[in-house]
Amino acid sequence: MSVRQPTVEDVARHAGVSRQTVSNVLNSPAIVRSGTRERVESAIRELGYTPSMAARRLRTNRSETIGIHLDPYAGGISGVILDRFVHALTEQATPRGLRILVYAAADAQEELARLRALREGGEIDRVVLTGTYDGDPRTAWLHEVGLPFVAFGRPWSAGVASPSPGHAWVDVDGAGGVAAATRHARTYGRRVAFLGWPRGSGTGDDRERGWREEMGEDAVDRLRLTSVDSVAAARTETERALAAGGMDAVVCASDTLAVGAHLAASHAGRPEFTVVGFDNTPVAEALGISSVEQRPELVAAAVLDLLVSQEPPESRLIEPVLVVRTPVR
Amino acid sequence: MSVRQPTVEDVARHAGVSRQTVSNVLNSPAIVRSGTRERVESAIRELGYTPSMAARRLRTNRSETIGIHLDPYAGGISGVILDRFVHALTEQATPRGLRILVYAAADAQEELARLRALREGGEIDRVVLTGTYDGDPRTAWLHEVGLPFVAFGRPWSAGVASPSPGHAWVDVDGAGGVAAATRHARTYGRRVAFLGWPRGSGTGDDRERGWREEMGEDAVDRLRLTSVDSVAAARTETERALAAGGMDAVVCASDTLAVGAHLAASHAGRPEFTVVGFDNTPVAEALGISSVEQRPELVAAAVLDLLVSQEPPESRLIEPVLVVRTPVR
Repeated sequence: MSVRQPTVEDVARHAGVSRQTVSNVLNSPAIVRSGTRERVESAIRELGYTPSMAARRLRTNRSETIGIHLDPYAGGISGVILDRFVHALTEQATPRGLRILVYAAADAQEELARLRALREGGEIDRVVLTGTYDGDPRTAWLHEVGLPFVAFGRPWSAGVASPSPGHAWVDVDGAGGVAAATRHARTYGRRVAFLGWPRGSGTGDDRERGWREEMGEDAVDRLRLTSVDSVAAARTETERALAAGGMDAVVCASDTLAVGAHLAASHAGRPEFTVVGFDNTPVAEALGISSVEQRPELVAAAVLDLLVSQEPPESRLIEPVLVVRTPVR
Repeated sequence: MSVRQPTVEDVARHAGVSRQTVSNVLNSPAIVRSGTRERVESAIRELGYTPSMAARRLRTNRSETIGIHLDPYAGGISGVILDRFVHALTEQATPRGLRILVYAAADAQEELARLRALREGGEIDRVVLTGTYDGDPRTAWLHEVGLPFVAFGRPWSAGVASPSPGHAWVDVDGAGGVAAATRHARTYGRRVAFLGWPRGSGTGDDRERGWREEMGEDAVDRLRLTSVDSVAAARTETERALAAGGMDAVVCASDTLAVGAHLAASHAGRPEFTVVGFDNTPVAEALGISSVEQRPELVAAAVLDLLVSQEPPESRLIEPVLVVRTPVR
């Protein structure tokens, strides 16, 4: 099993000429004597040499390849969202003549080194970033070297989205999604709680904002439940709140939290208690938990649109949709 | 925001020489007059031109890049396994100096066309295949053109693994995993059922084999439950079997089936009834369902080992491990 395709050297050896002569036949055939040219051309045919994409890349310095970071698999219920985005990006890039190169990196510094090597090697000419933040060294470097990129997600700073980060981004309207979830939950009772992560994460605070806006004066502190993103912790917190009473439904910042809330309600014998999640994961589907669907396919399409456009930095906010289900008990 | 890095043409224009002269300076500096050479060299420095990976590729015809197909996202509980494998492959390829290019294709014919284009373009020089089958046109073509490849999974034919498919493969020992699950379940009672898919899928039949081997004479037909891979269908089938009685535990061919069985047991008020799944997904973790972990990280390491070795086709069978949990009700 041989890994090699014929190279310029092979053609030169076969034709009994120098590598330079082969290069001349390929690039400036007019300067090569016709007898020599014919010998090189028949060597090219006999060996099946094809001036490759590598040659085209060398001429144009365009690889038409998008680099994107793939995190180590972290497990968990909601981890599937980024994978859905990468799947959608790969599927939609192909008909546009773009390729996807995935790479690993343990942190932002390692990612920067990786991006640098891929760019210097001419292997990528566009980048999709995820998990950007204020003062992100990756965005600064990408600007500096002029490599086009689009971020999935807005950079957050102290829970607030940078109003104009100076680069193209696509994000999902978390506040809008939670507002829709809250509207739905309100049909089961006025006192809808929000089960969210501890404050300070941009994404989490954005989702909480949707609940506050929809609830208005009813968004009392008692109904703001807090848990780290774990099924067990969310279950404990929901059990506490159910025992305290005065709560008709709960909207959650993630499906992980929603599974905990769902188990708490089941265990407490409260099948009428409505739980809404966020991310529309397979777990929510299996347990019949209503959940906010982020539509990563639309995110991918918007990212590709912005990545190929030559316009100044633009942004798109994708409106998620609520998937309503009947709980499985 | 400019997409272009400087090319040979830019250097030529900047130095006021022909493209051929720049090429000569890069490849055969001795034949260029020293004044001209210095002018070209300072143009190279001023423009920041780097003879790229593309040039190296052109010389060597080696891209050190692995192509792997990424399915469209199909949803479902167990879909996460292939993603975990791609994550692990990406993470482990980097320190080996290998890159991962992912591509999409709707079927085997489209994948073949895609592979052909990527190979002819010099963009990949190795392939990882998934979902191989007897008479797979992809393996035939890869052999024909001599592109090294390793398959994740054995090709199956009528439920039996091809004894010597003639190519390198890595797979997970499904029978071994289910045998371990059955041994564990037998500590709760002798009458352990197997909830599997309809016969005829290589993977499913292999898993069933592990149950039969471990159960011996106790593997009676009554304990072989059948369901398509859906939570609702698995729940219905388990409810039927629980009502019929004579069953102490159930080992399932997937976590999707296990979630259905778990819900059936919960609903029937049978918290002592043991359910074991396969794939160790986030859903199994959330519900406290014991499950067989496929260890995709070990699969990825073995695939890379075989992909870089120059040995004749080799195969590796990865032994999965059972993760034991206490059910969450």
